[in-house]
Amino acid sequence: MGKLRKIKSGTITSPKGFLASGIACGIKKSGKKDLAVILSEWPAVAAALFTTNNVRAWTVLYSERAIRNPRHRAILATSGNANCLNGENGKRAVIEAIRQLSKQSGIPKSQILIAQTGIIGRPFPVDAVRKGIPEAVKRLSRAQGKAAARAILTTDVRSKEAVYETNIGARVVRAAAIAKGAGMIRPNMATMLCFITTDVSITKALLKKALRESAGVILNSLAIDNDMSTNDTVFVLANGASGAKKISRPGIDFEKFKSLLSAVCRDIARQIILGAEGGTHLAEIEIKGARSDDEALTAGRHIGTSMLVKSMFAGADPNVGRITAAVGSSGARFSPARLKVFLGSVCVFRKGEVINGNLSRARKVLLKKIYRITVDLAAGKGSSLFLATDLTKRYVEINSTYST
Amino acid sequence: MGKLRKIKSGTITSPKGFLASGIACGIKKSGKKDLAVILSEWPAVAAALFTTNNVRAWTVLYSERAIRNPRHRAILATSGNANCLNGENGKRAVIEAIRQLSKQSGIPKSQILIAQTGIIGRPFPVDAVRKGIPEAVKRLSRAQGKAAARAILTTDVRSKEAVYETNIGARVVRAAAIAKGAGMIRPNMATMLCFITTDVSITKALLKKALRESAGVILNSLAIDNDMSTNDTVFVLANGASGAKKISRPGIDFEKFKSLLSAVCRDIARQIILGAEGGTHLAEIEIKGARSDDEALTAGRHIGTSMLVKSMFAGADPNVGRITAAVGSSGARFSPARLKVFLGSVCVFRKGEVINGNLSRARKVLLKKIYRITVDLAAGKGSSLFLATDLTKRYVEINSTYST
Repeated sequence: MGKLRKIKSGTITSPKGFLASGIACGIKKSGKKDLAVILSEWPAVAAALFTTNNVRAWTVLYSERAIRNPRHRAILATSGNANCLNGENGKRAVIEAIRQLSKQSGIPKSQILIAQTGIIGRPFPVDAVRKGIPEAVKRLSRAQGKAAARAILTTDVRSKEAVYETNIGARVVRAAAIAKGAGMIRPNMATMLCFITTDVSITKALLKKALRESAGVILNSLAIDNDMSTNDTVFVLANGASGAKKISRPGIDFEKFKSLLSAVCRDIARQIILGAEGGTHLAEIEIKGARSDDEALTAGRHIGTSMLVKSMFAGADPNVGRITAAVGSSGARFSPARLKVFLGSVCVFRKGEVINGNLSRARKVLLKKIYRITVDLAAGKGSSLFLATDLTKRYVEINSTYST
Repeated sequence: MGKLRKIKSGTITSPKGFLASGIACGIKKSGKKDLAVILSEWPAVAAALFTTNNVRAWTVLYSERAIRNPRHRAILATSGNANCLNGENGKRAVIEAIRQLSKQSGIPKSQILIAQTGIIGRPFPVDAVRKGIPEAVKRLSRAQGKAAARAILTTDVRSKEAVYETNIGARVVRAAAIAKGAGMIRPNMATMLCFITTDVSITKALLKKALRESAGVILNSLAIDNDMSTNDTVFVLANGASGAKKISRPGIDFEKFKSLLSAVCRDIARQIILGAEGGTHLAEIEIKGARSDDEALTAGRHIGTSMLVKSMFAGADPNVGRITAAVGSSGARFSPARLKVFLGSVCVFRKGEVINGNLSRARKVLLKKIYRITVDLAAGKGSSLFLATDLTKRYVEINSTYST
């Protein structure tokens, strides 16, 4: 009772009262799925996180306002075209898509959120979306959760889905997420798109707080490269369908819900890194002993976004100097003489000195698909966990020919 | 009169009163040159810029103190081993090397500066340096400038040298630089090592000011990757041997000297980018219309260190959205609707919209070896020029197997 449980092969419709669909409407020339709808059978409260990029897609500009409404029932998402930096045509496309979904589903426009992903700077094929929406609405069902997960992907190799449950009082409550991950992934918004559903009953204000304190921290702690998208969006819908008592103040139930959200987001974060374009390793970079959690995150991010460190991960080359140089240039305060660095459980740096005798054991750690790097700054109690992928020739290959 | 003139095939000994040498003492297993001495025949004033990394090589820790002395005559430099993060042995190696050069050359220890570059975290072969110094001192001559330039390289393909002259009063004055460039290059210190000699007569205080305002800005405005070294060092020695009148206050002559230093450093900066490990293009990223020069530099740096933008350079792919996304996430203030982006002279973004009709012409620009990208933020008068290389598969290849 109260423990978190992972629901294997669950999806975005695993929490009660949610339906979804995913179809191919023609945005993608490949004919792959590119339009998803997620719908709550009852009015829900919603919260969101958006990219902090000064250049933002039309869909982000729209949803930044729409999220202020008190109730929401639907998320409309498309993939293949970011609908960004494409002039007034793009703005009209968002309005038109919302209008069509409202008309076909009977849900008020004010209760619909929208997110889009794909290539930037191209005219948006709004006709395809308008024609596809009736089909997407018709297919809405619990069984279509996995189709929705596929429909938000771009170059991702596989879908990213995570579902966990816990108990609040005598009731089982669930949270589920789907994400679009590969590509432009980095703080301050780890996923291009991440949609979370939960049947918890909670106030809109507390939902927002929980999202920032769980998903916000986790999804800002991973990096494939050092870029931030114009479209990054996280939505959570909480519809109360579990029947559990409403969370209306911070306390045990609120903390339980945050743990539930965190579990879902951590799982998604790992899937994003493991599914990264051109990535072959997942490095969990743990910073301990920082002066603050913020400094720990900064140090972890510097390591996780260093091109030299990431190249070293690709070659499984224990070039410890690159890690210490990256943490040294992060601005985090520490004494180099007290710094300790571990690759897996192998200590490779201590007392101002690289331990060369341990490097061949350390190399074996870096040859694993998933490993942990621990950096102890010995300067305080701040900590962080940052997830990074490696920088491979394949990454460069994929990203040097994306648009053409 | 007063115009800057480039001295082709000049080197670090082209300014009057400087000698140099470069030998192989055995730090590098390849047998390549790895020990350089630069010497002024008269006491000179010196100034320096050091890495701001919290983790710094022994040689940086030493020279940070030594630079405070009033007069200097020599720079000792070695390559192949960074003498960093290798424990107390490394500290003793610096002291021993300085002592030996002082003994062999007759120059007081207080007048010797030292810089080192190479792999981090390995025991430093101080015996090799001690045994090599007598030979290096014996060879000191004007003719050995190019040997010194070669002796400070690690994986650089070619030497980096630049010499310019101008007039102060009736006298010709010169400044020359050699640099070690490839590899861990980025703000806040563009070169691992850059040594500048000049026969200008100037006070130590003004030399320091000139170095910061010219070399400091230029050498912090280039990026191969986003890493900062533990060893980055810039030294300038001014020995007054030109016979020109002493620069003892800001004014016309001081400005002339700054222009001279800037010319040398700009030339070196381009050589560094063009000689970057795994780089195939030089992108000059010009930011105009920023709220301040600082914001312009921040925006330029975000573009120049974005892995997605740099991958796009490698593939000559005019994916304009990546440039606008990078500038949008830089923190520089601007209105996306007023932003303009040019690749060469081709406008690719205007009025909030990518100009798709111009992309095939833009692609031709990106196929050149050297090109300019201009971003007009239309928000003020700040500007910057940032130099960046591309991110290639070869970069990853080189950097995934550096130490092993």
